[in-house]
Amino acid sequence: MRKTFNFSAGPAVLPETVLQEAADEMLDYKGSGMSVMEMSHRSALFQSIIDETESDLRELMSIPDDYEVLFLQGGTSLQFAMIPLNFMRNRKADYILTGYWAKKAFQEAKLFGDVRAAVSSEDRNFCYIPDCGDLDIPSDSDYVYMCENNTIYGTKFHCRPDSRGKILINDISSCFLSEPMKVSDYDMLFGGIQKNLGPAGLVIAIIRKELISETVLPGTPTMLKYKTHSDSGSLYNTPPTYNIYIVGKVIKWIKSIGGLAQMKKLNEEKAAILYDYLDKSAMFHGTADKDSRSLMNVTFKTDSDELNSNFVKAAEKNGIVGIKGHRAVGGMRASLYNAMPTEGVKCLVNFMEEFEKSGGKNE
Amino acid sequence: MRKTFNFSAGPAVLPETVLQEAADEMLDYKGSGMSVMEMSHRSALFQSIIDETESDLRELMSIPDDYEVLFLQGGTSLQFAMIPLNFMRNRKADYILTGYWAKKAFQEAKLFGDVRAAVSSEDRNFCYIPDCGDLDIPSDSDYVYMCENNTIYGTKFHCRPDSRGKILINDISSCFLSEPMKVSDYDMLFGGIQKNLGPAGLVIAIIRKELISETVLPGTPTMLKYKTHSDSGSLYNTPPTYNIYIVGKVIKWIKSIGGLAQMKKLNEEKAAILYDYLDKSAMFHGTADKDSRSLMNVTFKTDSDELNSNFVKAAEKNGIVGIKGHRAVGGMRASLYNAMPTEGVKCLVNFMEEFEKSGGKNE
Repeated sequence: MRKTFNFSAGPAVLPETVLQEAADEMLDYKGSGMSVMEMSHRSALFQSIIDETESDLRELMSIPDDYEVLFLQGGTSLQFAMIPLNFMRNRKADYILTGYWAKKAFQEAKLFGDVRAAVSSEDRNFCYIPDCGDLDIPSDSDYVYMCENNTIYGTKFHCRPDSRGKILINDISSCFLSEPMKVSDYDMLFGGIQKNLGPAGLVIAIIRKELISETVLPGTPTMLKYKTHSDSGSLYNTPPTYNIYIVGKVIKWIKSIGGLAQMKKLNEEKAAILYDYLDKSAMFHGTADKDSRSLMNVTFKTDSDELNSNFVKAAEKNGIVGIKGHRAVGGMRASLYNAMPTEGVKCLVNFMEEFEKSGGKNE
Repeated sequence: MRKTFNFSAGPAVLPETVLQEAADEMLDYKGSGMSVMEMSHRSALFQSIIDETESDLRELMSIPDDYEVLFLQGGTSLQFAMIPLNFMRNRKADYILTGYWAKKAFQEAKLFGDVRAAVSSEDRNFCYIPDCGDLDIPSDSDYVYMCENNTIYGTKFHCRPDSRGKILINDISSCFLSEPMKVSDYDMLFGGIQKNLGPAGLVIAIIRKELISETVLPGTPTMLKYKTHSDSGSLYNTPPTYNIYIVGKVIKWIKSIGGLAQMKKLNEEKAAILYDYLDKSAMFHGTADKDSRSLMNVTFKTDSDELNSNFVKAAEKNGIVGIKGHRAVGGMRASLYNAMPTEGVKCLVNFMEEFEKSGGKNE
């Protein structure tokens, strides 16, 4: 077991077995005499890596055949532009604002059209998921946009918004492969992989095929058209080959421990350890509304900024790292991604208990 | 020594010591208890990695202080759009067409303005670098674009084009850090790192600071503005952290063997071994004009497609991989990037000699 528990919000902890395999194969992948880093993206060997990664992902998420799986560069921040460039026909779209990243996507879309906030939870600093069962979506809206799990605010949708029959696009970066999802409930799912799936530098987008079209907004760069990538099997230009290789290993790791249903069970168990403690602690309390809580990012604080700061410092001295909350919320955030072992959460809660017992004097 | 010599044009061979270090540090980078893959891009530890990579690169290339160094995603294909989006003021630019990638950049720029071919060597299938000492560049041209080393055609500029005082932008992807360059001769140098510097998924751009501006073409996505990245120290969004880490190691490796002057000497020695053989062989001949030859990508063929194909197959059986030429040229291509050891080139030439001696029967 490793000596540090890394609660970073992303890039984040990866399965130890995956890292060990990557280390073992670094100088010689399967007898090829090469590292995967050194391999041509046009080689049969790399083709088998990307093909297997895609087919394992399709199996794990039960992705229907009428959805394309794309491996893309530029991070989710580039998706914030690609989505309007590719899907705005009427130059109108509706965004559900539940946090920092949804708002960033919203601001970026304004460069390209008339964009509306369908609903927002900013009135209480995004500490809850608003009711999305009765949204007012105009008939000429091109799509509805949401962010499933809000990394910074520690919230998550627990039911699908009613998009009134419009295209529904969902950023799942920080809950990617953390539990089963019904892909066909959405028209596009996408996420940066640097939280639950692998090393930063890759986005996976799962898009209903019929939406991918040559028709995009005028002046759209070639690399920003989904069609460019779907026509070329994500090999239009050199993709981030090593990142794809690690994602492939992480997907196999999830399969090996029982798939997404089992992953969800483990993630619920881990989150419960921390939430249960928060609910009974006199010193620490969760910041998100209970019915909106995320399984992946648990945000909490004490009533004192000084105490928060002391806790973060003391935790780090004890091998608990990446626990400082985002400045937009303050306090602490423990990201409990798939690869965080139960022992890590127990270690954190034990440390919180001791810290509380000592009245914040514990180091 | 490794059992395979990988002559792939990119992704390509990396220094064995770099791969060994990466393997050794995979589960625990410098006692942090974390892999670099798992580290927050906002952590002090990662900040020290990106800072050191930049300062080592500045030292190695003697990059003047009035140039920005940016770490970007999306590959050079995305630069083909970013360059016109950021630098076209009059919507006019001139491209020097010396191969596939220069032409791709040229085609992409047409999406945004009136783009001219200042000169082209397509008349002889790009087997030479045209005279660029007397180009006709209109006074309202926004910039002149070139690609220093043409990976597919095995050619390289041996003197700087006269851009008539206009901004000169140079794609150095396939000769990045292969020899000294005078950075101030150019206004922007950029390259994908997957040939000489590290794992695919990262572009490094070196841009004269005064050219980086908030003023870009209307509708430019935030991620496609150089200013976005220069304002944030290349940390506007999560960068490809692991790729940057490996590049940092490769740069240190180049410094350790004596810097770019020594690198050039070694690269000239390696290329001479192969070119000298090609110049005396009765079976194989180089495809690029002698005065335009690349040190990095050596293109050659026999007079028979069948013989070419047999050679590629026989070479692979003997641990010489990635030697097949691009379909645009045919025949063979040996990429002799920095990390290709002299032994690799000798092994290739020995095998070519044996193959020739056997009349193409050698397996």
